[in-house]
Amino acid sequence: MAKTAITPTRAEDYPEWYQQVVRAADLAESSDVRGCMVIKPWGYSIWENMQRVLDGMFKATGHENAYFPLFIPLSFLQKEADHVEGFAKECAVVTHHRLVPNSEGKLIPDPASQLDEPLIVRPTSETIIGATYARWVQSYRDLPILINQWANVVRWEMRTRLFLRTTEFLWQEGHTAHATAEEAQEETMRMLGVYADFAENWIAMPVIQGEKTAGERFPGAVATYTIEAMMQDRKALQGGTSHFLGQNFSKAQEIKFQDQNGTVQYAWTTSWGVTTRLVGALTMTHSDDDGLVLPPRLAPRHVVLLPIYRSDEEKSQVLAYVNSLKSELEAQDFVGGKVRVQIDDRDIRGGEKNWYHIKRGVPLRAEIGPKDIAKNGVFLARRDTGEKSGVERGDFVATIARRLSEIQDNLFQRALRFREDNTRTIDTLDDFLAYFTPKSKNEDKAEIHGGFALCHYAEGPELTELLKKHKVTIRCIPLGAANEPGKCFLTGQPSARRAVFAKAY
Amino acid sequence: MAKTAITPTRAEDYPEWYQQVVRAADLAESSDVRGCMVIKPWGYSIWENMQRVLDGMFKATGHENAYFPLFIPLSFLQKEADHVEGFAKECAVVTHHRLVPNSEGKLIPDPASQLDEPLIVRPTSETIIGATYARWVQSYRDLPILINQWANVVRWEMRTRLFLRTTEFLWQEGHTAHATAEEAQEETMRMLGVYADFAENWIAMPVIQGEKTAGERFPGAVATYTIEAMMQDRKALQGGTSHFLGQNFSKAQEIKFQDQNGTVQYAWTTSWGVTTRLVGALTMTHSDDDGLVLPPRLAPRHVVLLPIYRSDEEKSQVLAYVNSLKSELEAQDFVGGKVRVQIDDRDIRGGEKNWYHIKRGVPLRAEIGPKDIAKNGVFLARRDTGEKSGVERGDFVATIARRLSEIQDNLFQRALRFREDNTRTIDTLDDFLAYFTPKSKNEDKAEIHGGFALCHYAEGPELTELLKKHKVTIRCIPLGAANEPGKCFLTGQPSARRAVFAKAY
Repeated sequence: MAKTAITPTRAEDYPEWYQQVVRAADLAESSDVRGCMVIKPWGYSIWENMQRVLDGMFKATGHENAYFPLFIPLSFLQKEADHVEGFAKECAVVTHHRLVPNSEGKLIPDPASQLDEPLIVRPTSETIIGATYARWVQSYRDLPILINQWANVVRWEMRTRLFLRTTEFLWQEGHTAHATAEEAQEETMRMLGVYADFAENWIAMPVIQGEKTAGERFPGAVATYTIEAMMQDRKALQGGTSHFLGQNFSKAQEIKFQDQNGTVQYAWTTSWGVTTRLVGALTMTHSDDDGLVLPPRLAPRHVVLLPIYRSDEEKSQVLAYVNSLKSELEAQDFVGGKVRVQIDDRDIRGGEKNWYHIKRGVPLRAEIGPKDIAKNGVFLARRDTGEKSGVERGDFVATIARRLSEIQDNLFQRALRFREDNTRTIDTLDDFLAYFTPKSKNEDKAEIHGGFALCHYAEGPELTELLKKHKVTIRCIPLGAANEPGKCFLTGQPSARRAVFAKAY
Repeated sequence: MAKTAITPTRAEDYPEWYQQVVRAADLAESSDVRGCMVIKPWGYSIWENMQRVLDGMFKATGHENAYFPLFIPLSFLQKEADHVEGFAKECAVVTHHRLVPNSEGKLIPDPASQLDEPLIVRPTSETIIGATYARWVQSYRDLPILINQWANVVRWEMRTRLFLRTTEFLWQEGHTAHATAEEAQEETMRMLGVYADFAENWIAMPVIQGEKTAGERFPGAVATYTIEAMMQDRKALQGGTSHFLGQNFSKAQEIKFQDQNGTVQYAWTTSWGVTTRLVGALTMTHSDDDGLVLPPRLAPRHVVLLPIYRSDEEKSQVLAYVNSLKSELEAQDFVGGKVRVQIDDRDIRGGEKNWYHIKRGVPLRAEIGPKDIAKNGVFLARRDTGEKSGVERGDFVATIARRLSEIQDNLFQRALRFREDNTRTIDTLDDFLAYFTPKSKNEDKAEIHGGFALCHYAEGPELTELLKKHKVTIRCIPLGAANEPGKCFLTGQPSARRAVFAKAY
């Protein structure tokens, strides 16, 4: 067996492999606060790249950024009944606004500072933003409102996993208000499209766009749309959601306007969001048993140059070569920016240094020593395929953008093939149960099982119970799925189209 | 008297004028949560521009971004004694993590979910970040750590004012750890310099760089440095601070490392921050009785084009002209980006539209109707001076960057003159008291008084009492102030240099 940088491997213990990849790549770590993570510079830099690209996409589709309060008065949560039911349970509750020393000199919440109404640290902002929009909207002329917020949110979680499920996480939440249902529905689909575009063309992560079933909807929404990706343990991960909220929240929050005929109407609203979870999704989609593999378009660094020398004389020759090469590479364009280059001239062993960058997923590594310089070249290694070869310097500079694009494409195609290889049409309960049962003791132990199953179905208590028992969920009804009448694999009831079933994060 | 867009004027009631400018420019508004503001798109866009520029400056000086938890365990605050004293008093305390319905169906914090240890919503992050650094640092090779965080913070405030003092605000906090005191001191001064550069060259706000006196230091710091600006009511506003923390926090948080000789040492740390308060500072530095005046380098839009037409025929002619002009302007460079242009073709009266952009502070407005097109020109108005003139189209495009730079320079020079006109050397108590006493009933009513006083001083209870009584504070001891022996204006005690005294925000 080949030695791998990450122990255990994916095939040995997938959840633990993920934690080790995150650790080895310096993406994030647990903090001293239960369930909250520290996002380290390398991980945060990926998130910054995601933010920059998404922010550009939001602005290109007519949205502006704004900022709303971190706190939500408790009473606001109660205004939309379904919303309370879904969100009010596990959250951070602020009850006091001052600390005082007790008789032993230890700080305690000052009883005299108890708030009349507790404040909730936002788990999502529909209620507080809706209340604001109600003040802003009087006439149809005030619509649409197209606003996005970059913020932190808190949902108290008992079982957390870095990036994938944490008590505090970072996200963007778009909140829009429209004069008609059609416009709001259009907006909902537009932003789903933006998310799918971002996932596929930037994260190199193929996604299925679809609608959630009633049971999986956002609390208070009329319809929830999602992008679903497959991770390498064949589980589904919800990458982002876009909600058509109808008039539910506008009625709860009194977002009313006079239309062109002078009639008072409730506005139609939407909300949509993606989170730092996408950093986890990126990690689980592309990484291998040697650590993180970064899609070049979101990589904090595209190339790392590794100078190799044994004497002071060699050092000055090699560093001069490497520095000028860096400038040449940095002058090259790559997807709307420049090529991002790092020189790692730290005084550590070459092997250790190489593995450091492998584990952090840098797309290309170029070793440069006196022998390479003699040939006027570099010794280049691709992170995604492991391919290594000597490349002439001029050629390297001229082809850098193409090489990065090839890696980007390869990662997408590889992930797409993986998903296709692990997606099946299933029509009987036996097949369904067999599909979601681990194929071997090893798979069971590694927590790898199932895949995507495309099934006819009919919602109801029988199906709910089966899914709950086997920890399978309906991920979505794919958009544009062929209207293909059939029968529910469980109950035999008639079904108009197939949905995607999977175990999920 | 000329009619002004903002009522009251600065001379009539400065604090109320400020609130009205913020409102008229759509910068921000109070929210449904006490003390928290909603930052509206126009105001947030200014903050985004500030963030982009500062972030570039931080990265250019070797810093990376990361993200640390929103919550701080109560016990962490107690580790640094002075820090507790200064920060632990007024803050948001999270005591529960779940809501349940009571007997009447109203949600209340679930008593069963009470936290063993309350969590504080971060008022600043030295303690939680220090605890993290303690895990990261073992050897001198792990230093320096140069990290910045963009985040929200909460300090419970009883009296709030939009941007200037709010319970929640947005900021950046840099936290660095170094192997030597010298390096940490250098870092502290470097970041003070970055802030001064940003304030003067981007906000066009002249600042005095200086050190805080002992009484005004950050709780737990060895030395606090500040940039101080003068607002138009002649009060001082602290624009940003940079702290040399010595080993106080590293000792409290156990940030230790082995130096090159194998000796275990405590690290030397710094922290530095600026906040959304800078949007308020910008507003109060440049705005006039017609509303916001934006320094071009931070303006969300540099030019607004205002098409004027009376018929459909004129409309198509004018819009074609305006659209092509927009493209030409947007191709022009201005300080590292492109010129930002907006066309306002809303169907509202021309006067109203003009005032809308005046109140929002857009640096240049260009009216374009059939008469202007006949002359192949635009009718241009400068926001800062009110100057208006016909300008030939080609000339307008060619000179746009220069015109914006002129406005930027004019704003800085105007603010500098204002500060110089309102700064005095003061040597006696009588002069001091007279200086800080309103010169007239009107000034008193408008809350305009004093200015900067450069005084010799000796810290002590007598001075403290006098300052408290007259609500004057020592803003800073200016960097590089001449060593000019003198006597305290109050006690006659010897003094080595003058400090800046002022009423302050």
